[in-house]
Amino acid sequence: MSAPAAKVSKKELNSNHDGADETSEKEQQEAIEHIDEVQNEIDRLNEQASEEILKVEQKYNKLRQPFFQKRSELIAKIPNFWVTTFVNHPQVSALLGEEDEEALHYLTRVEVTEFEDIKSGYRIDFYFDENPYFENKVLSKEFHLNESGDPSSKSTEIKWKSGKDLTKRSSQTQNKASRKRQHEEPESFFTWFTDHSDAGADELGEVIKDDIWPNPLQYYLVGTALSRALHPQQLWEKVNFITELMLQMCL
Amino acid sequence: MSAPAAKVSKKELNSNHDGADETSEKEQQEAIEHIDEVQNEIDRLNEQASEEILKVEQKYNKLRQPFFQKRSELIAKIPNFWVTTFVNHPQVSALLGEEDEEALHYLTRVEVTEFEDIKSGYRIDFYFDENPYFENKVLSKEFHLNESGDPSSKSTEIKWKSGKDLTKRSSQTQNKASRKRQHEEPESFFTWFTDHSDAGADELGEVIKDDIWPNPLQYYLVGTALSRALHPQQLWEKVNFITELMLQMCL
Repeated sequence: MSAPAAKVSKKELNSNHDGADETSEKEQQEAIEHIDEVQNEIDRLNEQASEEILKVEQKYNKLRQPFFQKRSELIAKIPNFWVTTFVNHPQVSALLGEEDEEALHYLTRVEVTEFEDIKSGYRIDFYFDENPYFENKVLSKEFHLNESGDPSSKSTEIKWKSGKDLTKRSSQTQNKASRKRQHEEPESFFTWFTDHSDAGADELGEVIKDDIWPNPLQYYLVGTALSRALHPQQLWEKVNFITELMLQMCL
Repeated sequence: MSAPAAKVSKKELNSNHDGADETSEKEQQEAIEHIDEVQNEIDRLNEQASEEILKVEQKYNKLRQPFFQKRSELIAKIPNFWVTTFVNHPQVSALLGEEDEEALHYLTRVEVTEFEDIKSGYRIDFYFDENPYFENKVLSKEFHLNESGDPSSKSTEIKWKSGKDLTKRSSQTQNKASRKRQHEEPESFFTWFTDHSDAGADELGEVIKDDIWPNPLQYYLVGTALSRALHPQQLWEKVNFITELMLQMCL
């Protein structure tokens, strides 16, 4: 909410208001003191509102838990659910190299946990099957806000198998500092685990928490659903139209 | 909340999972249908949570109203409260030319109103005394989200007195389109009223609504409070120190 009001003490008002005299200055000083009192009431209401909203969020976080649990169990029955979901998501897919995608075929479970008081942060856990890339069974990244509101993040150190470190494959020649300055995307999905430069607004973390986690099925199904929404005849027409368009652009 | 789940229909899974046969494909299809059911439960809970949070916000908006009203009456007793507040606010002050500041000396009352359902938008009203710049008694700008979530804004047309249009004073030669492209600040506080290019994330609107309106007194007092926090002797030492520093820089 709002910052605490500055302490009000007697204030000499160098007003250029016509007819300002001792009396009106005293009145102004009193008005400021009253504003401060009213402001304290407003701040108190703001705090109460925040607490009530937090309680609502906590209540529903608990109510959602068994459904998330059930959903995870069902997702585990579908091979390649998560890699398909990530590939179908425009922002995540932009981070996926060919080998990232290979490695994500071993991703069996994703869990997003918001910490009890919600405002203090969240953690994302990625569960992997035995795979040729790294030893870890779980990779986690978590985001914290400390009491003064400063963000930080930490994550599992990835134990790469020999010669399999995907963060060292591409763009090795590119200077990391210059990449940061230009706000470019990390060059591998897995560099995200070692990048703690923007914990307060971690793009991938927030996409997973706020966009994918609330409804991953929509991204898993997106390709299928789109093509099925069209009648075969319509689909055929669309393909012809696009082919025509591409030909025109190339000529 | 999350987008509606894509309709689930039979899906041919071209799984490359070892041992995938007719039975496991049927199982996968069933799993997807169950995920969709679970997802509907999660979506239902999300909607309930949103509604409860909205009710809390509406309740506190009502509870705060009489205090905002009282605060406005008290502020009206203090000459130049709003212009001082705006000048002391770093982001707003960056928008203020010398003549904007002159005109804002006639600003007596600012009101921020969030619309009943909150999510749909807000309005800021600026009440002015009779002044040499424009005829209007009130200048308003309001921000709307329509039902599909698209933002728009509209505002009072300012009836400038002859030769007093502050939006036509500076940077006249600068091409407006190029200014837009470079995302520079408008050249006068008052151009903000005619700029509807970024209604979804109007910087000044949000600063006033979310930063100044919750506690304007802290900005009004900021200069005074800082100087009063120091004992006169400390203040004297600080002035000497800064004078010394400035002398060194100039020599």
